[in-house]
Amino acid sequence: MSVYTSPNAQTPSASYGAADKKPTIAIVAFDEFTDIDLFLMWDIVGRIQNDWQVKLLGSSKSHKSALGLEIEMQGHIREANQADAVLFISGKQGIPLALQDPDFINTFELDPNKQLLGSICAGSFILQRLGLLDCRAATTHPDAKTALQKTGAEVLDEPLVIRGNIATAGGCLSAMYLCAWLAERLLGEEKRREMLRELLPAGQQPQFEAIIDASLQSAAEAAIQTACQ
Amino acid sequence: MSVYTSPNAQTPSASYGAADKKPTIAIVAFDEFTDIDLFLMWDIVGRIQNDWQVKLLGSSKSHKSALGLEIEMQGHIREANQADAVLFISGKQGIPLALQDPDFINTFELDPNKQLLGSICAGSFILQRLGLLDCRAATTHPDAKTALQKTGAEVLDEPLVIRGNIATAGGCLSAMYLCAWLAERLLGEEKRREMLRELLPAGQQPQFEAIIDASLQSAAEAAIQTACQ
Repeated sequence: MSVYTSPNAQTPSASYGAADKKPTIAIVAFDEFTDIDLFLMWDIVGRIQNDWQVKLLGSSKSHKSALGLEIEMQGHIREANQADAVLFISGKQGIPLALQDPDFINTFELDPNKQLLGSICAGSFILQRLGLLDCRAATTHPDAKTALQKTGAEVLDEPLVIRGNIATAGGCLSAMYLCAWLAERLLGEEKRREMLRELLPAGQQPQFEAIIDASLQSAAEAAIQTACQ
Repeated sequence: MSVYTSPNAQTPSASYGAADKKPTIAIVAFDEFTDIDLFLMWDIVGRIQNDWQVKLLGSSKSHKSALGLEIEMQGHIREANQADAVLFISGKQGIPLALQDPDFINTFELDPNKQLLGSICAGSFILQRLGLLDCRAATTHPDAKTALQKTGAEVLDEPLVIRGNIATAGGCLSAMYLCAWLAERLLGEEKRREMLRELLPAGQQPQFEAIIDASLQSAAEAAIQTACQ
């Protein structure tokens, strides 16, 4: 059991511990997504692709990034409802567009009692719209802090905030903490370290290991301090 | 002038300081490229896309990543010869395949007196094959250190090593240092900080600014210590 599990963590569903089935990770994309927020998560979780199944999901056959890369999707967003974990990416233009699209928002029937749910940067606005954040602790990109506060969430100046089975991350590079949380919850601490090992800058491995450890620890502690009034 | 310019830095070419022309950045790809090594650089330099022109270059119309993403190229690798800066990505399978392809290697006619040249992880093997590293200081991914030493380079345990107009980086996240070097040399320190600002984890901005500053400083100093016998 991970030392980073928050006291209010839900017990993982039977499905994602089952020996006969690899956990399934859904990364949800949309048009005008921020390139790094998709690709960094995709790349990091791809490090251990034999240990889980990762799928890019969209409402169209392909979606175009904010910088113009056309990326083919690997499944429809409705598949997220059956995934063991769902990660929402971000997008300065992409998030408002997605939130305005009822076909996008109404497709999701997510269950934080059975699924791990995460977001990077403005992806937290999707979690909020789905009623998964409410007035509780969360984080986002610093540029979006005020807007997320206006939705009622308590926004902390933390790179990662873990509340049970829901984790929000803010600042693109925090994707490494979000993916670390996911790997540790689904596959254990050793696998989390293996996943991140290849990413760490040469000569700075101990320094980055310490930052990641501290960020995960802090993430679990931060959310304890706040709750809906 | 940047404080990070190494004492043996070449004077930038007139072309990339010219007010009437944006600097051109070529990111060179090939089949079986490591996803993160392309996308992280693409994403980071894309932050300030109005300040320079960035192009993904390949020998085919599109290239497929190690994790199976098909990415359309924006130009042919021969365009790298006219770019102000050329960045080589990596790939466990992709680099050996590219090095075995004479049409790939023989296309490049790069000039470190006029161009800024950089690599992430095993991209340094391309710089070496092109005769740009020789026996001098460089870095790469730790897993490739021994192999790069066998080519004659002196491989340092540093995330970034700057020798004049050539910079090598190792460990995927070191792409942030490589791109920082590039932005600072082409556009100045203020623009470098602007480019990286959006990436920094919420609540950890000062910590990451310090790591980036220290890594750039160390990169310039490290290479001074070694030279061909």
